[in-house]
Amino acid sequence: MKMRRVVNLSLDELPKRWYNILADIGPDFPPPKDPPTGFSRLANLPKILLAECLKQEMSNERWIDIPEELQQLYLQASRPRPLFRAYNLEKRLDTPARLYYKGEFFSPTGSHKVNTALAQCYYAKKEGYKRVTTETGAGQWGTALAYGAALTGLKCTIYWVRAVYNWKEDRKNFMQLLGGEAFASPSNRTKFGRSLYQKNKNNPGSLGIAITEGVEDAQNDPNAIYCLGSVLNHVLMHQTIIGLETQKQFEMFDDYPDIMISCLGGGSNFGGFVLPFVGEVLTKGKKIKFLAAQSKAAPNLAGEYKYDFADYGELTPLLKMYTLGHKTLMKPIKGDGLRYHGCSPIISYLRHKKLIDRVAYPIDEKYVFQKARMFIETEGYLPAPESAYSICAAIDQALECKKTGQKKTIAFNISGHGFMDIPGYRSVLKLK
Amino acid sequence: MKMRRVVNLSLDELPKRWYNILADIGPDFPPPKDPPTGFSRLANLPKILLAECLKQEMSNERWIDIPEELQQLYLQASRPRPLFRAYNLEKRLDTPARLYYKGEFFSPTGSHKVNTALAQCYYAKKEGYKRVTTETGAGQWGTALAYGAALTGLKCTIYWVRAVYNWKEDRKNFMQLLGGEAFASPSNRTKFGRSLYQKNKNNPGSLGIAITEGVEDAQNDPNAIYCLGSVLNHVLMHQTIIGLETQKQFEMFDDYPDIMISCLGGGSNFGGFVLPFVGEVLTKGKKIKFLAAQSKAAPNLAGEYKYDFADYGELTPLLKMYTLGHKTLMKPIKGDGLRYHGCSPIISYLRHKKLIDRVAYPIDEKYVFQKARMFIETEGYLPAPESAYSICAAIDQALECKKTGQKKTIAFNISGHGFMDIPGYRSVLKLK
Repeated sequence: MKMRRVVNLSLDELPKRWYNILADIGPDFPPPKDPPTGFSRLANLPKILLAECLKQEMSNERWIDIPEELQQLYLQASRPRPLFRAYNLEKRLDTPARLYYKGEFFSPTGSHKVNTALAQCYYAKKEGYKRVTTETGAGQWGTALAYGAALTGLKCTIYWVRAVYNWKEDRKNFMQLLGGEAFASPSNRTKFGRSLYQKNKNNPGSLGIAITEGVEDAQNDPNAIYCLGSVLNHVLMHQTIIGLETQKQFEMFDDYPDIMISCLGGGSNFGGFVLPFVGEVLTKGKKIKFLAAQSKAAPNLAGEYKYDFADYGELTPLLKMYTLGHKTLMKPIKGDGLRYHGCSPIISYLRHKKLIDRVAYPIDEKYVFQKARMFIETEGYLPAPESAYSICAAIDQALECKKTGQKKTIAFNISGHGFMDIPGYRSVLKLK
Repeated sequence: MKMRRVVNLSLDELPKRWYNILADIGPDFPPPKDPPTGFSRLANLPKILLAECLKQEMSNERWIDIPEELQQLYLQASRPRPLFRAYNLEKRLDTPARLYYKGEFFSPTGSHKVNTALAQCYYAKKEGYKRVTTETGAGQWGTALAYGAALTGLKCTIYWVRAVYNWKEDRKNFMQLLGGEAFASPSNRTKFGRSLYQKNKNNPGSLGIAITEGVEDAQNDPNAIYCLGSVLNHVLMHQTIIGLETQKQFEMFDDYPDIMISCLGGGSNFGGFVLPFVGEVLTKGKKIKFLAAQSKAAPNLAGEYKYDFADYGELTPLLKMYTLGHKTLMKPIKGDGLRYHGCSPIISYLRHKKLIDRVAYPIDEKYVFQKARMFIETEGYLPAPESAYSICAAIDQALECKKTGQKKTIAFNISGHGFMDIPGYRSVLKLK
């Protein structure tokens, strides 16, 4: 039989609906709630979230239509993206397992984040806003939102954790080239930011502080709305386009995954990749092992399942999730996008129901990056540091199959490319 | 009518043959020749080039089959690549012209160079070699060959002009991650390199010196063969896969180009994009304006049409081409891939026959990068600095159409992405 290294859908076969797993999880799913004291975060949500996104956040409809204009934007952003059979890697590993990887690295900004950035910008435009605001840590979400804003004709303001802003000069310039404006946070542009900035102009900032600035900025400008890039139900739902494509692509390969793997920080790429398959496990009796690859710097799935804030500044409602605690400090790693204290409520719930497995890799990242290097040498694509965790877990599973002789089908998502992250590889692998 | 932003071929529609324009140019095409004195470069060619590539170099067959295994490698390397309609850019320019761009930036290494790198590595493997050697200037070709070698299981040695090697640390590490070994040239690994290196360990090197080292290295190792990334007929032929895809994609758009544009250094991306269309002009009476976008740092198409060496070191046969002279020094620019003294014999011949127009942009690159910025802001893709010249020329033509009211169809090729070239944008556009 002819060796098939890759399949893709035609542009016409782009999924036309997102999958909302809340329809199949049922009424047990714990809703967000208010803390016992202080103002009502729930009542405040309509001021923070886009009306359409808030509606989606609470929806129990199984399928939600992707507006036609947004489908066009997805095509512009290089969707559908291919699914590859990793023959070369299999050969190198000498494993009986079949390995498949999804190419989210074809994203124009470098990560899967554009899938929800385009959706949120599309709705923002439709709801009459002129500007979107947000925070960013590693920078991928900020770049994606700047991209979404560029394609829909919106302005974009990004509050960027100062400690990262200061050294990711290339990514900052990329945001600017897309027409976005990025500010080191805490900044002197918001009341909350100023209160910290004026005490210490070198305050390194945090994601929580940056969220507060993004929200405050939008709330003070009737033409602006805040956007969030992970954790929430509607964000994961926008990302299901990844898994929906992957389902059709597995049909083209005439195969079906036994194991599905992706890296997990807040959970948006992991959720986007696996949720349509989790739906088949819940409703069609399929059996799949779902494995989240994490860093020991932020092993939130090993934390406690409880109500916690999504942000340091306690502006969000309480969400029921596996969490390390919203004020926990985490060590810096190159896969910075995985460094978040809590896991999205949907994935946390599925973990609670014993549907999601987890693995956490050492903080020095050598083990992870060495595995990623095997992938680069054999398959030729350069993954983002975060995606290196997906690859590492997939290789470990494939080597396990080698030991046991099991011919399992292993699917992993490569959520982004690493062209702008080579200094991270250099530092961890001691390249010269 | 539904707005169509992008089309692509299915994987099954990948072109199965390259187009060899020599079949349609006829016997007038001037062959390579030996210089009046010194050893016979022509007789030496079989020691320098792969047997299959040498055969292709001299072939007059119109269509040359792409081996099936190589087709699979092309699919792995994300071919076919999409053709986009630049609606957003058209709107920004307020032009009656229709603008289309080809997405070579989806390349795994960042440029169109992989199209010939994979072919040459495939043939090298087939001919029994264990290692490929080459030179590189800007670094794109070296990366592409390292990629080709990785996918075909060969070793790869790259002699890299020291002046560039010293500061492009990320790209060097990328080559290493692909399994390639890169050395600053002149190096102490070849006799020729040593003769220069031992006099001056900081010798900045040149493409000509690096070619000599690559050739010498391969000639001293029966398991190794040298590979070249531009200029020669067979290299341009491998690149015609770009234009062949584009032809089918224009049918899908139900349109046909009036003007085709790409940047031109040695001519491989320009040739690959336009030659299948030049064939239609030569044999089917089509009318297309072909426009090469160059830098005033290396406006080789404005040079003299004469026999000249392809390399500084005079190891190649003499080629009839538009040239600035093979010992000419050229000022550094960010679009470094355009900085070559001569234009490939095929494009030069077509220029001589008045089929190719040219434009050259100022050396400071501000004008070019400002136009590229309009493209990034509207279409969302980050082009390589070289590709910024394509964009600039396309925008200038579109603005000309705005003046005259002509609804021309303008096609341009974006030969690579700029994720690893943001420092160039920063420097030229004074980003902060």
